[in-house]
Amino acid sequence: MKLLRFGPVGQERPGMLDDDGKLRDLSAHVHDFAGAGLPDALAVAASVDPSTLPLVEGGARIGPCVGDVGKFICIGLNYSDHAAESGMSVPPEPILFFKATSAICGPNDDVEIPRISQATDWEVELGVVIGKKAKYVSEDQAMDHVAGYCVINDVSERDFQIKRHGQWVKGKSADTFGPTGPWLVTRDEVPDPQNLDMYLEVNGHRFQNGNTRTMVYGVAYLVSYISQFMSLHPGDIISTGTPPGVGMGQNPPLYLKPGDVMKLGIDGLGVQQQRTVAAD
Amino acid sequence: MKLLRFGPVGQERPGMLDDDGKLRDLSAHVHDFAGAGLPDALAVAASVDPSTLPLVEGGARIGPCVGDVGKFICIGLNYSDHAAESGMSVPPEPILFFKATSAICGPNDDVEIPRISQATDWEVELGVVIGKKAKYVSEDQAMDHVAGYCVINDVSERDFQIKRHGQWVKGKSADTFGPTGPWLVTRDEVPDPQNLDMYLEVNGHRFQNGNTRTMVYGVAYLVSYISQFMSLHPGDIISTGTPPGVGMGQNPPLYLKPGDVMKLGIDGLGVQQQRTVAAD
Repeated sequence: MKLLRFGPVGQERPGMLDDDGKLRDLSAHVHDFAGAGLPDALAVAASVDPSTLPLVEGGARIGPCVGDVGKFICIGLNYSDHAAESGMSVPPEPILFFKATSAICGPNDDVEIPRISQATDWEVELGVVIGKKAKYVSEDQAMDHVAGYCVINDVSERDFQIKRHGQWVKGKSADTFGPTGPWLVTRDEVPDPQNLDMYLEVNGHRFQNGNTRTMVYGVAYLVSYISQFMSLHPGDIISTGTPPGVGMGQNPPLYLKPGDVMKLGIDGLGVQQQRTVAAD
Repeated sequence: MKLLRFGPVGQERPGMLDDDGKLRDLSAHVHDFAGAGLPDALAVAASVDPSTLPLVEGGARIGPCVGDVGKFICIGLNYSDHAAESGMSVPPEPILFFKATSAICGPNDDVEIPRISQATDWEVELGVVIGKKAKYVSEDQAMDHVAGYCVINDVSERDFQIKRHGQWVKGKSADTFGPTGPWLVTRDEVPDPQNLDMYLEVNGHRFQNGNTRTMVYGVAYLVSYISQFMSLHPGDIISTGTPPGVGMGQNPPLYLKPGDVMKLGIDGLGVQQQRTVAAD
């Protein structure tokens, strides 16, 4: 299934795509795709014939494909080529960091460039949405805890991340730094998450062009690994790292300015497009 | 007001202390002290005469004093003496890191020592609960965005934090690593948050004995500072750092083992007591 949430910010309603790719309103059957309610919502959605649902008129805003995200966990330097362009070596075990859940926004919402920002950058990433609590799970069991996948743009302010002392979270958490969606694509529709093409373009120029097969640590390993350090809960999102081609890796580095347009996508998971604006 | 949440895990109900320090049930008036609903809940609680509320019979479990925490933001090395005992220098601006919100538990709940942990440690901290959205607020305006204060034990696994590569979050986020409460004490009852004695004892021995006056960056500065990097929302918690005396700072280092008892408190904010247990 391709599930989504549509409507104004904070008032999103659940929907799904039908076999023709048309958006159908699920809100008569499902309260939301969000947090602890996600497993039940997925089960109900699977029992519905999309063709019986009301069509959603064109032009609805698409929201983040999951609500009430408890943890937005990211993996650092998880593509060997990206580590190289960042001047860092591949880590001997996964690097974890968090983005603020308040950074999450819809896939086509405007992205704010923070005040005093000089180095706002892009990162297309495969997002993994947790569907079942995971605590000390093995790699063999890990995929049973995955609800599905989505596209994420891990927008990053490099000066805040690297030069403002301490931990990366400072450069990862501004409002709108986490476009998520358009769809939550359920796991059954993605038989091999380690073979998905992905790309990101800025103003029509393709900067990132990768495939999840070059991840250092794959999805099953990451779910198992993280679950040794903290419990994963339904609605948590793991953003699994970015391939080469970020702005910081250009020569000279190239960063976003207001009015730029980012377009990014992953095979079978849909496309995002954001315009950048200056923060109020 | 001294507000709290009582009842089984995940089913907490709101309560408050009356003038005699007795626990009263607020659930007929307030749904919860949680997330986006916090400001309204605080306003309703302030309009109620506690003596008219039902008394709660003794023995109720006390839950975390805030529910639906969106962000659990911590400040690193914010007491100069603690930086020294950690072998680190005072940072030129605040170090931010996140704990997983799934680590939050009640003030007297058992604390789990993770599997393979060799270095689980304690940190008594002043918690600041946000009551109003803060984005790019000045230090002068910052306190208007604070709902109140609470005690936090920023339980930390030092090997996971420091030796397992990358960011501190890995050692800060295990289940039960965030005892929070017992009370959310509203701001009006804490006229000077920068002059509060605080302590932590393990098995009756006092290891931490500090005062918030030795913080490097005070509460108003921190709220303003963080709001430059991300929006703060009602229910978010800032844990403002720990004074000297953590286990890592002992010579030789001393860490928790199953069966230990931690007791910690801050002037006017109440006392926590946790027993440590091995994770299942």
